[in-house]
Amino acid sequence: MRNWILPEYISDVLPMESRQLETLRRSLLDLYARYGYEQVEPPLVEYVESLFTQDDSALDLKTFKLVDELSGRQMGLRADITPQVARIDAHILNRKGVARLCYAGSVVTTRPDGLMSNRQPRQIGAEIYGCASIGADIEAIELMFASLALTGVTDFCLEIGHIGLFNAMADVAHWPNDARQAAFNALQQKDVPALEALTADLSPELRQGILALPLCYGGSDVLVRARQALPAIDAVTAALDALHELEAALLNRGMSVRFDLAESPGSYYHTGLVFNAYANGFASAVARGGRYDRVGEKFGRSRPATGFSLDLRALTSLPFPTHQAAILAPQSDDMALIEVIRTLRNAGEIVIVDLGVDVTEVHINRSLQLINGQWQVVPLQ
Amino acid sequence: MRNWILPEYISDVLPMESRQLETLRRSLLDLYARYGYEQVEPPLVEYVESLFTQDDSALDLKTFKLVDELSGRQMGLRADITPQVARIDAHILNRKGVARLCYAGSVVTTRPDGLMSNRQPRQIGAEIYGCASIGADIEAIELMFASLALTGVTDFCLEIGHIGLFNAMADVAHWPNDARQAAFNALQQKDVPALEALTADLSPELRQGILALPLCYGGSDVLVRARQALPAIDAVTAALDALHELEAALLNRGMSVRFDLAESPGSYYHTGLVFNAYANGFASAVARGGRYDRVGEKFGRSRPATGFSLDLRALTSLPFPTHQAAILAPQSDDMALIEVIRTLRNAGEIVIVDLGVDVTEVHINRSLQLINGQWQVVPLQ
Repeated sequence: MRNWILPEYISDVLPMESRQLETLRRSLLDLYARYGYEQVEPPLVEYVESLFTQDDSALDLKTFKLVDELSGRQMGLRADITPQVARIDAHILNRKGVARLCYAGSVVTTRPDGLMSNRQPRQIGAEIYGCASIGADIEAIELMFASLALTGVTDFCLEIGHIGLFNAMADVAHWPNDARQAAFNALQQKDVPALEALTADLSPELRQGILALPLCYGGSDVLVRARQALPAIDAVTAALDALHELEAALLNRGMSVRFDLAESPGSYYHTGLVFNAYANGFASAVARGGRYDRVGEKFGRSRPATGFSLDLRALTSLPFPTHQAAILAPQSDDMALIEVIRTLRNAGEIVIVDLGVDVTEVHINRSLQLINGQWQVVPLQ
Repeated sequence: MRNWILPEYISDVLPMESRQLETLRRSLLDLYARYGYEQVEPPLVEYVESLFTQDDSALDLKTFKLVDELSGRQMGLRADITPQVARIDAHILNRKGVARLCYAGSVVTTRPDGLMSNRQPRQIGAEIYGCASIGADIEAIELMFASLALTGVTDFCLEIGHIGLFNAMADVAHWPNDARQAAFNALQQKDVPALEALTADLSPELRQGILALPLCYGGSDVLVRARQALPAIDAVTAALDALHELEAALLNRGMSVRFDLAESPGSYYHTGLVFNAYANGFASAVARGGRYDRVGEKFGRSRPATGFSLDLRALTSLPFPTHQAAILAPQSDDMALIEVIRTLRNAGEIVIVDLGVDVTEVHINRSLQLINGQWQVVPLQ
């Protein structure tokens, strides 16, 4: 067995990529800080019950399990960070007002999400707890746009949907759980024949509404079409009003949007608006977000919540930051030289001490030399 | 079962501590970059065989195991990062010359190291591969000093030892493995009666040498005493010469040192010089380092190596960075306001949009107000 082989879909981050990840991570966290978001860092492992906000079989299957020998209980290696942040908001911070929280950390999944994906994504995200109004969603989307701009992803397309539309109609349909789940899955896959079969017994109005969802895809006219095709249930009207208000606010901020009323939520816990960003050259969404009201219920406190996340490792489109060129210094106990090196490093220069062995793969373009009794930085030939 | 209870010795990093950790992490990584160290980020999970550089029962016991369902093989959640960096140096980078590598990441251990410790330390460290000379150790110690200075730990004491002293004498003693391990453990615990029993059958010269080790503790005079008490085996003389050279170089750089020739190595894989920093108020070493030559052997390439690491979460002595005061802005679609907010954030200000719900625990000392048709930042009363 060769000991240097890594498991499938697991890889090292080597210096070039690490510089890129570190730069991105810092600039995104600084961006979130300027919007008033405070960073939290939940642990990598917890009791498995705490890692899911509800019965979430998809997340459960993605979560590695391990045994805590101190308690004998089962723990999980987190496959998502949002449920942990919800726990912190609900139980640890327990603030009365709005809490704006952000995080950046690794998650690990038992299986890759797709052929190109990694089992250890670097999840970074921002979340607003305690505000039910559309203003919170506008802020989340604005921040998601600003995040993608920083990662260098251009020409992405924001697709907005609302799970409340399907849920409102499904509530009226009084489907058993299985049938409801089957209809939801068919909708996600835009499998119209399956949806037609599953809605055969519903009232014509309700059936027309559900069958319209996979066709409601495109620009502003989608909302006009949806108002005509969907039944005038209160929750449907409220969801369409929210989408309309959101569109106006985003356009005003220079962000263009598309609608997909069958848009997939990023996770089980999403409850309302969903907004996903797609970009050329990426197999799946480059950023995902949405509403997950009541996410903290299991932790003793149900609060409205909205937010988004993205995987930094998937965003390799940014040009690698140029490697700063270094200065080579001789190894010596000469106090004057030691002092010069210290000063150069304090000024932000990379100074590499020559240990008598070649330094490769590092760009050295200058050296420190003793000229007329003074240590000077001299360009290399 | 309350779902918000975390496992023992596992805790969340909340905003105050997170700001401190983030600040420290960045300043240390920037410091290492200025010394020419390149960051690598090995994965959190690997096949268990790759996580140990040798038969290392202590590290094995500390490592959580999990099953990779893609391969059916056993994986481990890393409890140390150095063996992973050794793998990267040996097999992935495979450079001919010196490789200076650094890392910052979480490790997880099955049991805490002590009553006050955390099962998810934030390990940060720097390592030099491919240089056997004392110059590499001097650089590592210099960088460890500079790291501690940045963390705010003052008045720490650097204790230097050399595992080569015991190893050289144990080689001559031709002990069976068990006896050798027992003698090493007794030495670590400075258990002189046990050492006396274990060395009873050795030659008087060798016995005197081994029994002298736990007494060789203190300042410069330790090396003088050791030269008298220890047998004149080549490897012993070489180790004492190295300690002497190191002391002179460190003193020249303004770093004072103490010697403890029975000093504990941080890990199984240490082979020569060990240097640990102790500070008042900390139960165990605040930083640990040393030589681990041949650490990459298992990965197909044996190279000299030296380096150090520390746990950022243990270093809470730094005063928390002051929280930057924020500006409160009304929520509005007024383009002029949106533009003013954007400009303020780009200038590094924290601007929090008022979502109609209280914001607590965030220091807001100014607000944006429309005065004479202009959005202006006004101090809060």
